[in-house]
Amino acid sequence: MNKIRHLIDISDLTTEEIDGIIAVAEDIMRHRADYAHACDGKKIATLFFEPSTRTRLSFEAAMIELGGNTLGFASASNSSTTKGESVMDTIRTVSAYADIIAMRHPLEGAALAASRRSVVPVINAGDGGHCHPTQTLADLLTIKNRHGRLHGLTVGICGDLKYGRTVHSLINALTRYPGNRLIMISPPELGIPNYVRYEIMEPRGAVWSTCSTIEDCIADLDVLYMTRIQKERFADLDEYERLKDCYVLNAEKMKAARSDMSVLHPLPRVKEISVDVDDDPRACYFKQVEYGKFMRMALILRLLDDAAKGYCPETTRREILSEGFVCRNPKCVTAVETDLPQQFSLRDKAHNVYRCEYCETRFGHQK
Amino acid sequence: MNKIRHLIDISDLTTEEIDGIIAVAEDIMRHRADYAHACDGKKIATLFFEPSTRTRLSFEAAMIELGGNTLGFASASNSSTTKGESVMDTIRTVSAYADIIAMRHPLEGAALAASRRSVVPVINAGDGGHCHPTQTLADLLTIKNRHGRLHGLTVGICGDLKYGRTVHSLINALTRYPGNRLIMISPPELGIPNYVRYEIMEPRGAVWSTCSTIEDCIADLDVLYMTRIQKERFADLDEYERLKDCYVLNAEKMKAARSDMSVLHPLPRVKEISVDVDDDPRACYFKQVEYGKFMRMALILRLLDDAAKGYCPETTRREILSEGFVCRNPKCVTAVETDLPQQFSLRDKAHNVYRCEYCETRFGHQK
Amino acid sequence: MNKIRHLIDISDLTTEEIDGIIAVAEDIMRHRADYAHACDGKKIATLFFEPSTRTRLSFEAAMIELGGNTLGFASASNSSTTKGESVMDTIRTVSAYADIIAMRHPLEGAALAASRRSVVPVINAGDGGHCHPTQTLADLLTIKNRHGRLHGLTVGICGDLKYGRTVHSLINALTRYPGNRLIMISPPELGIPNYVRYEIMEPRGAVWSTCSTIEDCIADLDVLYMTRIQKERFADLDEYERLKDCYVLNAEKMKAARSDMSVLHPLPRVKEISVDVDDDPRACYFKQVEYGKFMRMALILRLLDDAAKGYCPETTRREILSEGFVCRNPKCVTAVETDLPQQFSLRDKAHNVYRCEYCETRFGHQK
Repeated sequence: MNKIRHLIDISDLTTEEIDGIIAVAEDIMRHRADYAHACDGKKIATLFFEPSTRTRLSFEAAMIELGGNTLGFASASNSSTTKGESVMDTIRTVSAYADIIAMRHPLEGAALAASRRSVVPVINAGDGGHCHPTQTLADLLTIKNRHGRLHGLTVGICGDLKYGRTVHSLINALTRYPGNRLIMISPPELGIPNYVRYEIMEPRGAVWSTCSTIEDCIADLDVLYMTRIQKERFADLDEYERLKDCYVLNAEKMKAARSDMSVLHPLPRVKEISVDVDDDPRACYFKQVEYGKFMRMALILRLLDDAAKGYCPETTRREILSEGFVCRNPKCVTAVETDLPQQFSLRDKAHNVYRCEYCETRFGHQK
Repeated sequence: MNKIRHLIDISDLTTEEIDGIIAVAEDIMRHRADYAHACDGKKIATLFFEPSTRTRLSFEAAMIELGGNTLGFASASNSSTTKGESVMDTIRTVSAYADIIAMRHPLEGAALAASRRSVVPVINAGDGGHCHPTQTLADLLTIKNRHGRLHGLTVGICGDLKYGRTVHSLINALTRYPGNRLIMISPPELGIPNYVRYEIMEPRGAVWSTCSTIEDCIADLDVLYMTRIQKERFADLDEYERLKDCYVLNAEKMKAARSDMSVLHPLPRVKEISVDVDDDPRACYFKQVEYGKFMRMALILRLLDDAAKGYCPETTRREILSEGFVCRNPKCVTAVETDLPQQFSLRDKAHNVYRCEYCETRFGHQK
Repeated sequence: MNKIRHLIDISDLTTEEIDGIIAVAEDIMRHRADYAHACDGKKIATLFFEPSTRTRLSFEAAMIELGGNTLGFASASNSSTTKGESVMDTIRTVSAYADIIAMRHPLEGAALAASRRSVVPVINAGDGGHCHPTQTLADLLTIKNRHGRLHGLTVGICGDLKYGRTVHSLINALTRYPGNRLIMISPPELGIPNYVRYEIMEPRGAVWSTCSTIEDCIADLDVLYMTRIQKERFADLDEYERLKDCYVLNAEKMKAARSDMSVLHPLPRVKEISVDVDDDPRACYFKQVEYGKFMRMALILRLLDDAAKGYCPETTRREILSEGFVCRNPKCVTAVETDLPQQFSLRDKAHNVYRCEYCETRFGHQK
């Protein structure tokens, strides 16, 4: 099988590639008619093993605006999974029907596992609490468009920083650009996980601080990135009830913010941004939806182009250890799809941390 | 935000506008090829928060026959609603993906609420038991095509006249044309509600009567409009069982009807029209499905055209009272989407009746 | 109503017609661009009253690759069936929206019943455990392409031969071509049903034998057709657990097979083919998915062409007895859709066997 380039994790793209995709997205926004037939006769399969209207429709709208077509399913109850089929078999089957696949799956690492059997490019549209790289691409285009740059910005990130996959990917992306300063606004229980700190931020020398309320830092921010405190992520519902209203943005708090600040949110929002902020010109979260569509258009073009050229970058993936380890994360795709080989790699030499290649759960001990 | 014209209620269209849409639909029927690319590059989003195959596929077929594309969801379990997102946020998001939206929702007033946040035209494809204006447009084209006119007709309306939203909208439309005579055929428990009588029929001087069986009036009718007695509308299932077979049309009863009568039904039918009527040339209910598609094509063209021109008629909406009232209808969108402002207006001065702007439930007392 | 040609059962096609459809499919594979606009402006409705991702997406991909469009539903919960509508009414409605319909339904005979009210061609995409003719067309093209012929082949058929509808249709097709030898590999409890033996194989003088393991016959085979032992078909789950691993193909067993043997499987597979076979060049089951798409393209073209010409072959359907018989199969469409007339015909004179026209369940006694 030829090697095919996929997008599983934002780390699969170099900073230059991200900049290139942003440039194409900006060109699409300026010259939409020029792209209206760029994918004539092409098909995207949107395979959503768990529902996500926003993301699924964004991919479908993107492909349609490029002149292509769509097929797929919106929830696992309509897929062959219920008959016991593996996700790899489903993807291999569907890759006979489509030129490119966008998939969402509740298991962590499912997109990586699936991509190994696909003969067409696979885009990870969310794999459990693990990755969601196209959301990060949407975030970046929004910031770029509002502020003219991706460097030298003070960015507050508020809400659930522990479980929020969009947050981890955004930090991964923003810390690549020089001069950014990150302010983490969350309750201590929901702060950024150690691995983000030790494996992403520290190696890059990121400048960051923590802050316990929005009010304390909003006046300093270029960007305020709000996130939902997701009920699904809590084992303890009392804990959820106690925290969910702590980090709410409203019109009153916005008064202290700069006139050119922008508020982003990956959506859906529940109560963490009050509706009285919606008509504030600094509220960018609905605009962000549209930017997400344009980035997905640019990404589809890029991956189809790479596939046509047979271009697949040498993965910088780590040396794989397959013997003697078993991933213990019950949400890892290997916990369910038992035909998959267990694979681990050394990610953090200093602390002797191995991680599962699929879900990136740590195995080993920090010194 | 520019004002955008939507279709929430059949009252949003003037009689002249209805006639214009019918004329376009008739032109489409005669010259289908002329319209095959009228919406090239356009997209309709069909957002069905509750399932309705017939209506959803009708909108999708309509858009496809105009050269456009479709995206959306077929049930709420596949939407972001399950994550706690408001219907306004969902619609605002989707309006970044599509040029026009058709939505069905189980809550009354949901389409109106949603339309206020949409940047593209919203068509109400049913909001609970409240409105379903495109069904009425389908009914009108069917009658026009069969009888050559929408005035001077004797129309029997049979079945559930109390809860049947299609009936109320049809009465609203037919009483605008001169010389129509309406015969209400229903058990007393399921007769037309007072508000239809006092707010629609009486002000227009409608000529109407009641009749307790089909047999008693079928010989007089130009049109017999049958409706389903919907199980969902009954609190008491015994009552449903007792009534459901009372108002059944069959081949035997058709013998007394005129040769040019036409039988309409909004479908789905269960038992209220016997299958032995299906091959009778006077049975129009499957033809009506096709007319519905043509009317939706004409409507889509009209709303997209109005949006392109920035045309939005001055609403004749009533003066709004927002203070001190709370809608008590548990199926009203305001009961669930608590961020919505409560809004009421005086609809019937003579009886001092205020109604909720969303669900039109009465608040106040008849004298 | 004009007669319309449908595809309900593989018997609806003559051997010459099957060969013709294969020839078109092969031409499509060689000259794909020539067919990219063959169905411009046409629509297929995929009506899946029970989910089947693979089959549904195959039809949709097929129509899109012909330049056409798709609409439909992926599960019954999204259809009007939940409101009590008959499948005939649903199909008649949808035939106002589409040029051709592919439907899957859990009830046996549902596609035949539905086709009688459709004004466009209906393709049976599976009706319960009864028929699935387009799978058979996919199987035939796969064999033809791999072996250059459909005659003179030794074909092992392994797994659930009792309930496997794909197996029965494949036997029906392969026994039409001369010189084929069939080897039935199954536990005795899951052997081929008598009716396949007495009504299909014996009248055609088919050459066949049974074999209790894969190992005993694999060296002789041109084709090994594996099937899933479907959990859904078992009343007794212990029986399922006991049998499900008996007939598993793995790399070890493949060592004894000829170098030009081909392994087919209708998919989804669960454990009956080990993943260590997937990369064997003799494994054709994923290629088979692609062949299925090309056959569906050829079939769609054929049925649309026949419909355009008004061509509908004289059915060789049997003389119908409608009086005094009632089908006792609880999965027959007549058990649920009670408006359907009961219809039986004499299928096997020698044994005095009558069968239901819908589900083909036997009524009568073997001598």
